[in-house]
Amino acid sequence: MRVTLVDRHNHHLFQPLLYQVATAGLSAPEIAAPIRGILRSHRNATVLLGNVDAVDRQQRAITVDGVRIEYDFLIVAAGVSHSYFGNDAWAEHAPGLKSLDDAFEIRDRVLLAWELAERAESESERRGLLTFVVVGAGPTGVELAGALAEIARHTMAKNFRRFDPRTAKIILIEAGDRVLPSYHQRLSAKAEHALRRLGVEVRTGSRVTDVDEAGVRLSDEFIPAATVLWAAGIAGSGVGGMLGSTLDRAGRVCVDGMLNLADDPQVFVVGDLAASTQEDGTLVPGLAPAAIQMGRYAGRAIRRRLKGSEVRPFEYLDKGSMATIGRSKAVAEAGRIRLSGGVAWLAWVFIHVLFLAGFRNRLVVLFDWAVAWITFRRGARVVSDGAAARRLEQWRDSRPKLPGEGNRTSTLPEDGSA
Amino acid sequence: MRVTLVDRHNHHLFQPLLYQVATAGLSAPEIAAPIRGILRSHRNATVLLGNVDAVDRQQRAITVDGVRIEYDFLIVAAGVSHSYFGNDAWAEHAPGLKSLDDAFEIRDRVLLAWELAERAESESERRGLLTFVVVGAGPTGVELAGALAEIARHTMAKNFRRFDPRTAKIILIEAGDRVLPSYHQRLSAKAEHALRRLGVEVRTGSRVTDVDEAGVRLSDEFIPAATVLWAAGIAGSGVGGMLGSTLDRAGRVCVDGMLNLADDPQVFVVGDLAASTQEDGTLVPGLAPAAIQMGRYAGRAIRRRLKGSEVRPFEYLDKGSMATIGRSKAVAEAGRIRLSGGVAWLAWVFIHVLFLAGFRNRLVVLFDWAVAWITFRRGARVVSDGAAARRLEQWRDSRPKLPGEGNRTSTLPEDGSA
Repeated sequence: MRVTLVDRHNHHLFQPLLYQVATAGLSAPEIAAPIRGILRSHRNATVLLGNVDAVDRQQRAITVDGVRIEYDFLIVAAGVSHSYFGNDAWAEHAPGLKSLDDAFEIRDRVLLAWELAERAESESERRGLLTFVVVGAGPTGVELAGALAEIARHTMAKNFRRFDPRTAKIILIEAGDRVLPSYHQRLSAKAEHALRRLGVEVRTGSRVTDVDEAGVRLSDEFIPAATVLWAAGIAGSGVGGMLGSTLDRAGRVCVDGMLNLADDPQVFVVGDLAASTQEDGTLVPGLAPAAIQMGRYAGRAIRRRLKGSEVRPFEYLDKGSMATIGRSKAVAEAGRIRLSGGVAWLAWVFIHVLFLAGFRNRLVVLFDWAVAWITFRRGARVVSDGAAARRLEQWRDSRPKLPGEGNRTSTLPEDGSA
Repeated sequence: MRVTLVDRHNHHLFQPLLYQVATAGLSAPEIAAPIRGILRSHRNATVLLGNVDAVDRQQRAITVDGVRIEYDFLIVAAGVSHSYFGNDAWAEHAPGLKSLDDAFEIRDRVLLAWELAERAESESERRGLLTFVVVGAGPTGVELAGALAEIARHTMAKNFRRFDPRTAKIILIEAGDRVLPSYHQRLSAKAEHALRRLGVEVRTGSRVTDVDEAGVRLSDEFIPAATVLWAAGIAGSGVGGMLGSTLDRAGRVCVDGMLNLADDPQVFVVGDLAASTQEDGTLVPGLAPAAIQMGRYAGRAIRRRLKGSEVRPFEYLDKGSMATIGRSKAVAEAGRIRLSGGVAWLAWVFIHVLFLAGFRNRLVVLFDWAVAWITFRRGARVVSDGAAARRLEQWRDSRPKLPGEGNRTSTLPEDGSA
């Protein structure tokens, strides 16, 4: 058996910790391992960096950057990206979080807002720079909002001379009636309480009607904010559409009980991209443990079929789900067991380190977390030079010019001891 | 006394380890600390992210992104970038290494060359992708070449199915007659020997006459190479030119014995940007220890002048210099003491960790090095998604098209067990 793995990233990403890269807690290499390094001892596995252009199910071949690759079995695990519900113009002003590049974009924006706040020349300008809006209160939104609140309260302490970082506003907007809607109501309430204690303004039942460079519009209000992060809505990867099979409303590929296309048993779809209906009528959730189970199932199913053995349908084993809120709170549920607070947080730390790919990463991440927990600092406060230059130019262009000269001559305000 | 620090980076960079970020050994946050974090307990120091547009010495003011800032004393420490000796068109094909963005650019190029080598469809294409040329055999060039050689020999072992990574060629080109020309001849010879043992092809007395996307032209030869790195020549930062004072040929600012401009004692220039002539007629070298000494001197000189005390001229104390070659060799010299081999390497590790800013960084870097030393792996093999997409598109566009169809239908070659 020969396996060819095609990916447009050179690295395997540990998605559950991506929000920590976006909020300067971890560095990218700590949660990303090179795919060909992971598979180095599997001599029958070839790794190719590439973009899939097309899938030809009739001929059983895919095209990768103009090069055709034939298959006997095809496993599609291309995942999902974020959806702006038809308002793609919002993407520019409200980046989502799915890839490392997304995380860098968010980290640059968040850190640059703080930098420009120290240079702001009016209170209203500073207010906009120090308002951070997160749209969507699923696990990613909750985790981002919690991390942003801790940055304002702890990480940035004593870092500025012209304002008190604790005056920053973190606003979490959710269209539904509670945060973490996929969790039990009791945990939603606990999570909301923990967020509020961290200083996050939680606004449930609020729908975003517009996003632009100045901020976010709700149906009845405009919130001026330089930084808006998008954690609402998913859209299946474009590779799903290339299969020419049925998609659900979110662009996920509908699969049968064997994770195959209904009319093509040579094609499997696994992970977040698969719309796999369980016996109770609900979909297998888009979580890392589900994706791992589906991937393992597809591999075993192919092996059994090659041997001529019977293949049983995929059954999702719910191992539970969890989300952190800041530096020592979390919520977790597995079946009827529901945890919150410090116990859930410890469970979260343990499980996330356990599943992190690579020995080195695990120890370094644990070490980083320990130092961050003790010092309240964040180890990855790096802005890319390019992003800084672009943002400064934009800021400069937006400044009022004095008549008759190119440069204004406003002297800087006196620094207080904020 | 009020201090305002203006920098276009948000981070202080530990330049001596930058080549390790460029070669995927360390992650960026490990060698970069946020400037305002470093200065947080200095309440009279304000940090501003910004680009200097102009310096007005008559009015004693600088302009930062259109905003004027007045000064009593000005310390300019803007450093140097790389020089292509008038051939700026080479920059696109042969990036230099001065900033974190440069390091990411190099890391992306190096890792993507390896990725595309696995997809190459002809031996000549693969040969170009697996040829890495480093121009300039100063410490940076030597360290880059050594790291690239170790990647080929160790890091990439078993990672590919269609070629043996040890067939990669690392070529170090130097116009002068020996590597590390600023070191004692004996150490140059030791360094060259160590590089050759690592598999680096060292070509001294070779002058580059052209660089393009296909490779490097020497006076009498063309070397096809997808990856060319530039480690030759420096050019003073543009901020030096804004002073309207005398520059030397490399664009550094000429300063007097007090590190002031000859006609303006309110302005100091320190670090790599300063052309400061010593008693023996040589310049203070562009090394981190010299820059630290100059910065400290300028701060103290201002304090003494404000108190009305006498200020003595700057004296550079030569603490020596060192460069690593691969994972356990180095050369070091301090005055008449010259070390090479494993002893020099241990000294290098000790001193570099000692000077690395920030408690967390030191321990994490030591840990990373220990793991890398034992496993031969590199912890930061991450290619940016954007860089991968651009490179793949470029690669795709450069492929021959079969007549009559958009996509070629070449099936992939059989994978050997290289």
